[in-house]
Amino acid sequence: MSNAYTPKPEDKFSFGLWTVANRGRDPFGDVVRPALPPVDAVAMLGDIGAWGVNLHDNDLVPIDATPAERDRIVKEFKAACDRHKIVVPMATVSLFFDPVFRDGAFTANDARVREYALQKTMTAMDIGAELGARIFVLWGGREGVETDACRRPDEAVKRLRDAVNFLCEYSIDRKYGYRVALEAKPNEPRGDIYMATTGAYLGFIPTLAHPEMVGVNPEVAHEQMAGLNFVHAVAQAWDAGKLFHIDLNDQNPGRYDQDFRFGSSNIKSSFFLVKFLEDVGYDGPRHFDAHAYRTEDYNGVKDFARGCMRTYLILREKAKRWNADKEIQTLVREMGGAARSEPYSAERRDALLKQPVDRAALAAKGLAYERLDQLTIDLLLGVR
Amino acid sequence: MSNAYTPKPEDKFSFGLWTVANRGRDPFGDVVRPALPPVDAVAMLGDIGAWGVNLHDNDLVPIDATPAERDRIVKEFKAACDRHKIVVPMATVSLFFDPVFRDGAFTANDARVREYALQKTMTAMDIGAELGARIFVLWGGREGVETDACRRPDEAVKRLRDAVNFLCEYSIDRKYGYRVALEAKPNEPRGDIYMATTGAYLGFIPTLAHPEMVGVNPEVAHEQMAGLNFVHAVAQAWDAGKLFHIDLNDQNPGRYDQDFRFGSSNIKSSFFLVKFLEDVGYDGPRHFDAHAYRTEDYNGVKDFARGCMRTYLILREKAKRWNADKEIQTLVREMGGAARSEPYSAERRDALLKQPVDRAALAAKGLAYERLDQLTIDLLLGVR
Amino acid sequence: MSNAYTPKPEDKFSFGLWTVANRGRDPFGDVVRPALPPVDAVAMLGDIGAWGVNLHDNDLVPIDATPAERDRIVKEFKAACDRHKIVVPMATVSLFFDPVFRDGAFTANDARVREYALQKTMTAMDIGAELGARIFVLWGGREGVETDACRRPDEAVKRLRDAVNFLCEYSIDRKYGYRVALEAKPNEPRGDIYMATTGAYLGFIPTLAHPEMVGVNPEVAHEQMAGLNFVHAVAQAWDAGKLFHIDLNDQNPGRYDQDFRFGSSNIKSSFFLVKFLEDVGYDGPRHFDAHAYRTEDYNGVKDFARGCMRTYLILREKAKRWNADKEIQTLVREMGGAARSEPYSAERRDALLKQPVDRAALAAKGLAYERLDQLTIDLLLGVR
Amino acid sequence: MSNAYTPKPEDKFSFGLWTVANRGRDPFGDVVRPALPPVDAVAMLGDIGAWGVNLHDNDLVPIDATPAERDRIVKEFKAACDRHKIVVPMATVSLFFDPVFRDGAFTANDARVREYALQKTMTAMDIGAELGARIFVLWGGREGVETDACRRPDEAVKRLRDAVNFLCEYSIDRKYGYRVALEAKPNEPRGDIYMATTGAYLGFIPTLAHPEMVGVNPEVAHEQMAGLNFVHAVAQAWDAGKLFHIDLNDQNPGRYDQDFRFGSSNIKSSFFLVKFLEDVGYDGPRHFDAHAYRTEDYNGVKDFARGCMRTYLILREKAKRWNADKEIQTLVREMGGAARSEPYSAERRDALLKQPVDRAALAAKGLAYERLDQLTIDLLLGVR
Repeated sequence: MSNAYTPKPEDKFSFGLWTVANRGRDPFGDVVRPALPPVDAVAMLGDIGAWGVNLHDNDLVPIDATPAERDRIVKEFKAACDRHKIVVPMATVSLFFDPVFRDGAFTANDARVREYALQKTMTAMDIGAELGARIFVLWGGREGVETDACRRPDEAVKRLRDAVNFLCEYSIDRKYGYRVALEAKPNEPRGDIYMATTGAYLGFIPTLAHPEMVGVNPEVAHEQMAGLNFVHAVAQAWDAGKLFHIDLNDQNPGRYDQDFRFGSSNIKSSFFLVKFLEDVGYDGPRHFDAHAYRTEDYNGVKDFARGCMRTYLILREKAKRWNADKEIQTLVREMGGAARSEPYSAERRDALLKQPVDRAALAAKGLAYERLDQLTIDLLLGVR
Repeated sequence: MSNAYTPKPEDKFSFGLWTVANRGRDPFGDVVRPALPPVDAVAMLGDIGAWGVNLHDNDLVPIDATPAERDRIVKEFKAACDRHKIVVPMATVSLFFDPVFRDGAFTANDARVREYALQKTMTAMDIGAELGARIFVLWGGREGVETDACRRPDEAVKRLRDAVNFLCEYSIDRKYGYRVALEAKPNEPRGDIYMATTGAYLGFIPTLAHPEMVGVNPEVAHEQMAGLNFVHAVAQAWDAGKLFHIDLNDQNPGRYDQDFRFGSSNIKSSFFLVKFLEDVGYDGPRHFDAHAYRTEDYNGVKDFARGCMRTYLILREKAKRWNADKEIQTLVREMGGAARSEPYSAERRDALLKQPVDRAALAAKGLAYERLDQLTIDLLLGVR
Repeated sequence: MSNAYTPKPEDKFSFGLWTVANRGRDPFGDVVRPALPPVDAVAMLGDIGAWGVNLHDNDLVPIDATPAERDRIVKEFKAACDRHKIVVPMATVSLFFDPVFRDGAFTANDARVREYALQKTMTAMDIGAELGARIFVLWGGREGVETDACRRPDEAVKRLRDAVNFLCEYSIDRKYGYRVALEAKPNEPRGDIYMATTGAYLGFIPTLAHPEMVGVNPEVAHEQMAGLNFVHAVAQAWDAGKLFHIDLNDQNPGRYDQDFRFGSSNIKSSFFLVKFLEDVGYDGPRHFDAHAYRTEDYNGVKDFARGCMRTYLILREKAKRWNADKEIQTLVREMGGAARSEPYSAERRDALLKQPVDRAALAAKGLAYERLDQLTIDLLLGVR
Repeated sequence: MSNAYTPKPEDKFSFGLWTVANRGRDPFGDVVRPALPPVDAVAMLGDIGAWGVNLHDNDLVPIDATPAERDRIVKEFKAACDRHKIVVPMATVSLFFDPVFRDGAFTANDARVREYALQKTMTAMDIGAELGARIFVLWGGREGVETDACRRPDEAVKRLRDAVNFLCEYSIDRKYGYRVALEAKPNEPRGDIYMATTGAYLGFIPTLAHPEMVGVNPEVAHEQMAGLNFVHAVAQAWDAGKLFHIDLNDQNPGRYDQDFRFGSSNIKSSFFLVKFLEDVGYDGPRHFDAHAYRTEDYNGVKDFARGCMRTYLILREKAKRWNADKEIQTLVREMGGAARSEPYSAERRDALLKQPVDRAALAAKGLAYERLDQLTIDLLLGVR
């Protein structure tokens, strides 16, 4: 493979432990790959040139581990990370695997489950902090319903706010310095999940006690499951200063959560995403929250992980070319672009109200977006 | 039809002029009904027992009307409203029909189009204010793209914010007292529309200069086009104090914008919506933004409009029965419900961290949601 | 619960062993219910008034059972069925759970896997026949791809045809008298599944060697995952004489496979489905291929299973009322309805070509479908 | 633009009159482009290097034209086609635009509408035949419902069959030599359209009186609206000998009918489609049933039309490279591939039943599909 597309630490490519160690179980079938111990996963990530690894508490420490086991496991994992020059930028908590969370965690109807969810999350924050993570992701995969008979949805919002407020205080209290990144998903594993979109979380954050500590972790597949334009969601998060983390993968709309290799399904929208992240200077982790097809052994898992990074780098180069392409840039300039509107004033008001408008003339001008888009397709296909 | 389901003014049922006067044009076919003049539409609404009528500027005043014509039309319309005891609770502006807006209005690349959009909206706000409207809806139906090559999406967000800020100032300046309600939609007529969901607007509002003036106008069909749970979106808006208006209709997910008669497709989710609005005491307009099938003449349009109100009233009665049903309420009480979590403190933290948890016991308890849901279905079907 | 909605054997309600014994594992969480042995599942079905039980080979007989174990298990199961007066109308085969099928079964690229799939299916047909089943369902859940690079799709069609032809011969050879019912699904667990819709199988069947032996097994959730109108698919299958079996459940469109309790999500389309089956006199099994929410214990599973049957019976009674409702039937009669067109002839051709048409008059007539639909909603809600 | 991607007559690229002459009206907005007379559209097609033009009867001949006008128009159009070396490979009929068809055409409840639909289609077949078309497409865009209360769906199937049978007889009678191609769509403009998928039509055709005359016209956007894999549908049609025509465009799933420029949204699936058509040697028209964005003037329409053909040719070249790529072909060979299974016999049966299977060994082999897919992505992006 070309050197130009070889990942480097400064690219900040990270993978969840649960991604490369995914064993391929699905609703209709059993595991297809043997277990991959966390230290071996880290070794694999070092081998393929990744920069970071993320984890849920129980990806590393079994849910029933004693404190001594927990300490030993974390210590050995840290040593493995050091050995392979892999950092831990982000940590999170599993509030979905254990049956105790079958009705949700922070929003569960049973107050004891809600309390246990707080306990478990605090403990997970401890692990993350010990490993150096400064981003803590909360994905409320079970915070939802199969029937709205079981809970009033505004009650769920309140419970969720209570929990996030509590956990922010914990991070402050413990001086962990976390930035909390909330991750939305419309459905699966629940019939409907509360806070279905990144936008919903952007609306939720300003209602928190510490909004400045909390941002979002948009995931390609989760927005695309609902058929939404992912880069629009990312752009809104960026505009609001809330793009704390990002989950890269791929997904065909209107389906189960596919978590495909980045860029493998929707080349064009992956391109506009990479272009956006690079254009605005996003400097957080590029986290691949995906997994290999069930047809693969661990060689195939490596192919998968390398492919995620490679496609990102190819698209990054194409974004640079797009920005440097004279014909494209001429069209972009002619479009008009970035002029800000003037603020309100009586003068501005009256000027606008009096301004004669030749609607027909404005409407008659061809905008050449078909040409611009075809040039983009040509560039993506490598024929310009 | 039963008296119990006869609409009354206090029900606050409103229809857009564009709904009952919809002529049935679609992408593949021509109009099927003759034009219905606005004053005749108002008469029809009075006849069927509606409370209010909403309008886009050009539903009433042609885009090329002279000031004198505009004044005469508005005056006659006001008289018709008075005559038929119909109020005008909400007004809005068409920033989508004229070809000048083919690339958007507030987010268009051509600065002259953006200026014209402001001019046209101010003028529409004048009309609404004159008719007594205190809610002004903005639906950015053309604020979007077919290709993201044509505009950086964060630029669109900035332009949109500039516009909404400007228009809030205008309302303050003119002392119109408007509450501005932003209406989201994921796509159609654009390939993708910015601010695709109600959640996105809830995230956008806190970035405005006058967030207190601005809320949302969620529409059933628009969330359901993306397969999202509508009542969850409404609940979040309510929780944030931002449910300024609502558009009621129906829609099968993953399709073109169908705008079906309220409650005609998704009976169960319509029920939970009505129940939520009534439970929380929402007292704004119940606006039906729907239209009759193309198979109907104006008698059928009346059937359609009556059906919207009737189904709302039937479901409202069922919501009351649900709240009064002893077996259902016993199940609801057993679920646990509304206890708030305690705020963060060192004591609370330590108590939670030390608290022993019997996960297996918590997980073993059956929650009886199947039974609760079946009782709900029985109640909806009228067999309990 | 009302006697009128008590299931009777002649209602032919059946459940898969995998439905009531479903343990609630999903892609993000572990099992929530203990294992329910097949004989206990049969006892439960007897208890709640079901008529039949269906099974995959490995629902009953472990994949690694010896012939002696297999015989003992089948015998004991048969005895349990007799004891509880439960019949086995349908059998099927698991070609999806074991990792050997990760690339498909009949369409797998590895010829040895294809051969094993035939072997396993013949063995499953033996079990079904021994238990009295006369319908054999084939659901090709793994017959698909994540990337079309791995197989030409016409090759998959050919392999599938070879397999079905082979298995028809086996049934003839063994004198099993099976009617084979093919079950479509668009995706999950594969990225895309071949033969995505019931329609696709209706097109496939005439290309087989024994088309008369082969029909379809449409499943509500599988068509609705793709947002398709299920009753239209069922009607086409019925018209073609190919409705050999049916899988009843519920599903919100554009999502993972939800397998909800029958009638719990889409009341209206469930009604039109029941009405269709009853109107045409479908006399095959009413099989509920659904499972209880993960929040339930086995009491909840019973609630779930009872609810499936109860809702069917409620809707069946409503279908009768719809057919007997004078106002509704007047509207139906006025619609025009069932007159067949005359066959082609020179006279008919010329008559049609010369026939004057008053398009405007034909187009002006209101068809009163809004009224008819509202009457249907009223009837469903129990207010007429 | 490169010569390699210049369209030639032997590429058989065609456009509907309604595509390049599309004026950009949509449900929320007015026309954006002036009318383009048919003869000018033909001139444009000649100018950009297309081979053919298709048409609905009323794209060319107004619905109220006298016989003399009709003859003059057809004659002039034919002359224009000859002048610009454009052929007319396919004709079709508009059974959707006029309000008379608001309840369907062949399946309408009013028998007079059904008769008029036959009359109008015979007349359209006359026009097509006169212009040299040998393919006649039937798209039943209005054959559907908003509520299933209005018609039993099996009745619709019967009416549709009667109509197609009648029209086949007409073609035989008039010696037109048509091959009839049926085009499916799941919804829009009707709430649900009968025969929602290409598969449904493949199932319908064997129930006709002249199945040999009738095939399908799959459209990319129509299958993708339902989120279905288009190339799988095309492959099944090809396998059945029924791929009589094809409509190329692009579409994001789960939305209104977008009819985007071919290859502009889903590059990868467009590639597999082109590869399939070229691999199997499909030699029918490559018809682009798409239209330019509303932002375009007629220069933009030309850009759009050129882009459709250009992207097809780029992808065709990539398909050749894929077939010639050594690393890719090595992987393809290792997959196993095309070996046919042996037919049924007692020996084969017994051999299969006795054959020992090492499931674990078969399941352990990595299939390298991630690598194969990444090589495909590399090839598509022009970096190998």
